[in-house]
Amino acid sequence: MRIDIKKCAALLREHNNILILTHAHPDGDTLGCGFGLCRALQKCGKRARVINADNVPPKYAYMQNGLNDDNFKEEYIVSVDVATENLLGSLAESYGGKINLCIDHHGTNTEYAEYLLLEETAAACEIVYRVICELGVEIDKDIADCLYTGISTDTGCFRYASATPSTYRIAADLMELGADNGSINRIMFETKTKTYAHLERLALDGMKFYCGDRVAIITVTQEMYAKTGSNEQETEALAPLTRQIEGVEIGITIREKPDGTCKASIRTFEKINASDFAKSFGGGGHAQAAACRLNCSVEEAKNRLVEKCGEILK
Amino acid sequence: MRIDIKKCAALLREHNNILILTHAHPDGDTLGCGFGLCRALQKCGKRARVINADNVPPKYAYMQNGLNDDNFKEEYIVSVDVATENLLGSLAESYGGKINLCIDHHGTNTEYAEYLLLEETAAACEIVYRVICELGVEIDKDIADCLYTGISTDTGCFRYASATPSTYRIAADLMELGADNGSINRIMFETKTKTYAHLERLALDGMKFYCGDRVAIITVTQEMYAKTGSNEQETEALAPLTRQIEGVEIGITIREKPDGTCKASIRTFEKINASDFAKSFGGGGHAQAAACRLNCSVEEAKNRLVEKCGEILK
Repeated sequence: MRIDIKKCAALLREHNNILILTHAHPDGDTLGCGFGLCRALQKCGKRARVINADNVPPKYAYMQNGLNDDNFKEEYIVSVDVATENLLGSLAESYGGKINLCIDHHGTNTEYAEYLLLEETAAACEIVYRVICELGVEIDKDIADCLYTGISTDTGCFRYASATPSTYRIAADLMELGADNGSINRIMFETKTKTYAHLERLALDGMKFYCGDRVAIITVTQEMYAKTGSNEQETEALAPLTRQIEGVEIGITIREKPDGTCKASIRTFEKINASDFAKSFGGGGHAQAAACRLNCSVEEAKNRLVEKCGEILK
Repeated sequence: MRIDIKKCAALLREHNNILILTHAHPDGDTLGCGFGLCRALQKCGKRARVINADNVPPKYAYMQNGLNDDNFKEEYIVSVDVATENLLGSLAESYGGKINLCIDHHGTNTEYAEYLLLEETAAACEIVYRVICELGVEIDKDIADCLYTGISTDTGCFRYASATPSTYRIAADLMELGADNGSINRIMFETKTKTYAHLERLALDGMKFYCGDRVAIITVTQEMYAKTGSNEQETEALAPLTRQIEGVEIGITIREKPDGTCKASIRTFEKINASDFAKSFGGGGHAQAAACRLNCSVEEAKNRLVEKCGEILK
């Protein structure tokens, strides 16, 4: 059932021992929502905990610093920034069909939860901010850092067309409440490990163009990880680079998995819907940023994706 | 004489035939101030014109689209985002000592103008926004685009610690007034020509580290421009890349001029003052982003800059 901010806050107020699920391969938005909401619920005197199918990447570790995370018998299950149950990764098995409340900003949400608070904001953290305000919790620096992180990372640091005046104003509020915008953005957007910097150079050197230079594809193989010492977790920043070349309308990053299959990240501009593109390969996402899995080799994935690009751009 | 926003608006209201000077090698902030203010003054029924010692780079051309720019006998001279008269470049000769009003955000402003409106905001366009509001001019889409451009470019798209809650809120206001944030940020931050992309790869491949990897230097020579087809105007985005490698505290970009001398762009984090660094070579700028000229070869410039880094980091 679709609900509004008020009802969402009321549901959270009524329950305790709240388990918050974030999506697999977690990014700043799902973790910002999870840890921000968890801290706010604990400030209300509730027990709450965040879990994820995968490890929290080190650059997001500050969000959980000092967070009291004792065991409890979960009574109420909330998912944040999770469009479909299968995006929970390995948690889908245990929690599929059992999610009480979902807070999300994906138009593609499959309404799998008992209650759904859905607004198509640029970042899900914008919605969580308003839920926390509705709960009457005083937002402290730690909560502000979590929510600012989600908003900044999901908008490419306020760069994408998806960011609205409201996005900017919530960020301004969070800065006044203590969010350390300078440090957070430096960690998220200005800090490359030497290993990642090396991998990025290799990937860009190997960028290939198709469909009259309207498609750019970069490929990251297991061999490149081995050569540079980098790893998949470090490579979030790669996908946006593919659509930066003048004239490119579809940018694709293909990452080889250890088992030889692939994941493709798709970036587009307004004219082309990345989510529809990804859906045709069983994936999903947003209008300008989406992803899908391909159960084939990098070379075959590239061929299939280029063929699809050709159809779309015709 | 230092003045406030009210007095600045009053001075502009009292005068006509207003010539607006922007700094040489113009960036988004000085041009945003110039064209934004010019459009606002014309909406007040005044004659106004923006000039620059150098050409307006093509990516900023939309700011002057359709701007009525007829000749007039200048009666009142205003400089925007110009910290010292010599930053006017070749215009310094004609206008040195003759500037009536300066609107600026550099703490290093030498108070060369008769009246100075100085606030140390992240972008000078924030000040111009408030001046235009004080003038009572209704901000239209064209003005909003100019001012948003200045704010976005001078904060690295809202990324730097210099951006304040007020910076974000003014940007939000400008978006509501029609600023096309998505397109502007795409042009400024997401669009690389193929020639620049090639130059960037060459420059990054040649990045060198000094002082125990706390200093990173990239060098752009005339030969590299020739090889890639790129040019100096395209290379604004290079400087921020130097301080992105983990552990780097000072990032320097040395660009060779056609005459064999050099310009160095210096980027630092909070602990080190880039403006002081640049001043010791006769340059200037902001606390974390500054620049200087060196009348020597690239190699000698590199040696002199590395030596200075060594002193600072000791």
